[in-house]
Amino acid sequence: MAPTPSARPLPNLLLVSLVPIAAWFVVRPLLDPPPPLPVLFASVGFSIFAFLAALYLIPALGPRFIQANLKGKDLLKVYTDPIPESQGLVCASIYILLLILFIPFPFSDTVGSLSESRKTLQSVASLHHELSIYLSSLLSLLMATILGFLDDVFDIRWRHKLPIPVIAAIPMLMVYYAEGGNTHVVVPIPLRPLLGVLVNLGPLYYLYMSLLSTFTTNSINILAGINGSEVSQAVIIAISVILNDLLYLPWPMDFKIPLHLLGSQAEVEVGGPWHAGMSYGSSELVDRHLFSLYFMLPLLGVCLGFMYHNWYPARAFPGDTLCYVTGMAFSVVGIQGHFSKTLLLFFLPQIFNFILSCPQLFGLVPCPRHRVPRFDPDTNLLHPSKAKLNDKPPSKLTNFVLRLLSTLGLTDLTVDPENGRILEATNLTILNFLLVRFGPMTEKRLVQVLMATQVAGSVVAFAVRYGLAGLVYDGDRR
Amino acid sequence: MAPTPSARPLPNLLLVSLVPIAAWFVVRPLLDPPPPLPVLFASVGFSIFAFLAALYLIPALGPRFIQANLKGKDLLKVYTDPIPESQGLVCASIYILLLILFIPFPFSDTVGSLSESRKTLQSVASLHHELSIYLSSLLSLLMATILGFLDDVFDIRWRHKLPIPVIAAIPMLMVYYAEGGNTHVVVPIPLRPLLGVLVNLGPLYYLYMSLLSTFTTNSINILAGINGSEVSQAVIIAISVILNDLLYLPWPMDFKIPLHLLGSQAEVEVGGPWHAGMSYGSSELVDRHLFSLYFMLPLLGVCLGFMYHNWYPARAFPGDTLCYVTGMAFSVVGIQGHFSKTLLLFFLPQIFNFILSCPQLFGLVPCPRHRVPRFDPDTNLLHPSKAKLNDKPPSKLTNFVLRLLSTLGLTDLTVDPENGRILEATNLTILNFLLVRFGPMTEKRLVQVLMATQVAGSVVAFAVRYGLAGLVYDGDRR
Repeated sequence: MAPTPSARPLPNLLLVSLVPIAAWFVVRPLLDPPPPLPVLFASVGFSIFAFLAALYLIPALGPRFIQANLKGKDLLKVYTDPIPESQGLVCASIYILLLILFIPFPFSDTVGSLSESRKTLQSVASLHHELSIYLSSLLSLLMATILGFLDDVFDIRWRHKLPIPVIAAIPMLMVYYAEGGNTHVVVPIPLRPLLGVLVNLGPLYYLYMSLLSTFTTNSINILAGINGSEVSQAVIIAISVILNDLLYLPWPMDFKIPLHLLGSQAEVEVGGPWHAGMSYGSSELVDRHLFSLYFMLPLLGVCLGFMYHNWYPARAFPGDTLCYVTGMAFSVVGIQGHFSKTLLLFFLPQIFNFILSCPQLFGLVPCPRHRVPRFDPDTNLLHPSKAKLNDKPPSKLTNFVLRLLSTLGLTDLTVDPENGRILEATNLTILNFLLVRFGPMTEKRLVQVLMATQVAGSVVAFAVRYGLAGLVYDGDRR
Repeated sequence: MAPTPSARPLPNLLLVSLVPIAAWFVVRPLLDPPPPLPVLFASVGFSIFAFLAALYLIPALGPRFIQANLKGKDLLKVYTDPIPESQGLVCASIYILLLILFIPFPFSDTVGSLSESRKTLQSVASLHHELSIYLSSLLSLLMATILGFLDDVFDIRWRHKLPIPVIAAIPMLMVYYAEGGNTHVVVPIPLRPLLGVLVNLGPLYYLYMSLLSTFTTNSINILAGINGSEVSQAVIIAISVILNDLLYLPWPMDFKIPLHLLGSQAEVEVGGPWHAGMSYGSSELVDRHLFSLYFMLPLLGVCLGFMYHNWYPARAFPGDTLCYVTGMAFSVVGIQGHFSKTLLLFFLPQIFNFILSCPQLFGLVPCPRHRVPRFDPDTNLLHPSKAKLNDKPPSKLTNFVLRLLSTLGLTDLTVDPENGRILEATNLTILNFLLVRFGPMTEKRLVQVLMATQVAGSVVAFAVRYGLAGLVYDGDRR
């Protein structure tokens, strides 16, 4: 018997005790003597507040959402009670508002001792420059929020909405352009005899940046449909980016990463004015990854708060808004932090899901409106959902693609026993693939398997980035 | 017989001919020799595009709005067909997107010759600074859009929504703070013996800026209810601000404003590197008013396009979104251009309406949900609408206020002939006041009278600003 959706209880006493902790983190940078990375302290404090705000506001605003007709029926449950939809809007609002309130910490001399210590590393002009970058990122996030919410309200057909994130990326691109942004990329070692060390992509670089934001946004959006799937992807990718950022911070203790175990040629050197793990004493790298942390930490906070209510059985739905804003946040840090290739490595399950989806996205295989797994109310288990092909015989190409995917174990085909014609194929998504491989399972189990896949993807990503990448890239990271 | 709402026809041939004109304005700054104020040319081009985009997109998107339940019934018509509501969202989207695409013109060296000529006047660092200001203004406009649209979707009670614009002002305030913004104000001459020439308001300055945005936003929003009332206010205020800005530009011809006719002591001097009417050769003043023009010109364009469809009988409603975004745009230029006092002068009818509304806003007099004039379907005329007081005898204060307003001719009272008790009062808005003074009239006539009032207000504003202000302020405008 599935539980009915009533608001999830909150451990109030425990949570309220987080308030003074968060407040301490926010206030600490203002006290003497300043901690080593004062602004990061404030960011941690803001992130805890983001978590608490999401945790409390999501259920509090639920009834208002239902009243405004922003509600959905959970397709994979026996009950039909309306669940508030598009609550990613609450997450996005908290997230962006906190990022705005955060502005004085990195960009004013309030955190006096901070700016003293920074002034030795970078000039005031570059602080102005960084503020522009920060603001253009906020504009892109805010546009992603609006566009996601409009998508929810106007229910835009997904084929039409694929290019929408490009619009949200425009502010970032415009400021990148106005500020004379670098459009050179470092060439992998094997290609250097042909192209040189650096190649100027020019306008192609802007195309690349737009495509990146389209990909990060849509890839989270199409890996949706079961309770917690969207937000859990965002949480694991955010944690991966945060772990990667932490490698570049100036830690008080010297540490070395045993890269030789991963097969890398280059050993990490520690030294310079900053004792950084991977920054090789470059304050620019440290700044880039601090910038990334300022965006990722509160995103993680807000997503964890939302996840509590979106976890099986969900009491709140994210809507497209959450996917848009989280996807855009990842693009922002990847682009502004200049680690977009590393970022893409954290999207391995999404890339797999996207490639697997292509035959349906591009019309080779019929694509029903919903490709979520099929729910069996008797057993409470999810089964792979199927796309019917039996209105007309499939083309040769469709036939070939489906038989290839079936051979690779990526789809299950239902074949007419008489003439061998393909009648049905399981929908080409990672969720259905997991059900095809591991058999029917409960929704909760499926999201856990999905999360495990995402974590495994990140482990592979780190191995590739810090192991194999040494074969094709040296330390040159302009 | 009132016409039924079918889409208003567009003079396509005439309009399409505007496209090459707009394109010429956008491209002209890139050609040699550059015009005197190249970026202003581009801004004019963008504004024509804004006008055309609003003109075509408003009717095109109408059905989608109705489908998404964003629709309203026109309360002052005999027909009940649904009219698309919240289409200010379309205006806001066009407006902000064009402002974003405009970024490279003032802030990059694309407009090469421009930046050459500017570099002599201001350093690159101050260009970075201006970009931050511009971006923070965009953030505030975008937040106003979201908040206005949320207000439309969630239908927030207006008493709760009064403080909402403060949230939208936060990005502007934060960047003002982070950039070490000036919080000094120039003291009027009569108070200088007490306070000195400049007084530092400190945090009060931020309070003032938040209140300004609350006022500009809400004052347009509460002067609503008849076809074209919101947008016509925005159009006339925008034109007034533009005219005021033009006074400060470096014109090729020398001109003097006959201020002595208005009673001002100071005569305008023309000279310096810029032949500016009112800028006294100060490039900072020129820059401020250029900044204002970049925001006001496309706002005017988009509002004129919308007005065409919102004009009596309206085929499109603005929703709160239009009021929020136009109000915030006025605050942005007033604050960032440092002419907030002048700006407020252009809000005379709104200030009058607000003061008149106070007894109802603050509960002295009962306030019905809608205070729009009453429509008489037989005569097609509007009459003042009334608030009933007869559930309990009015308090002494209410009695006094209403009798005072009645003596001043600002309201009509219905009095019990037996005991002299006030039974009803016409609602305390400028619209009802105009009907009380000039008698019942058609809706179209009423909006025309309202527009005439707004124009008269702006004429008074200019007289006060450039005439009387000379008595209390000298040229010192820090």
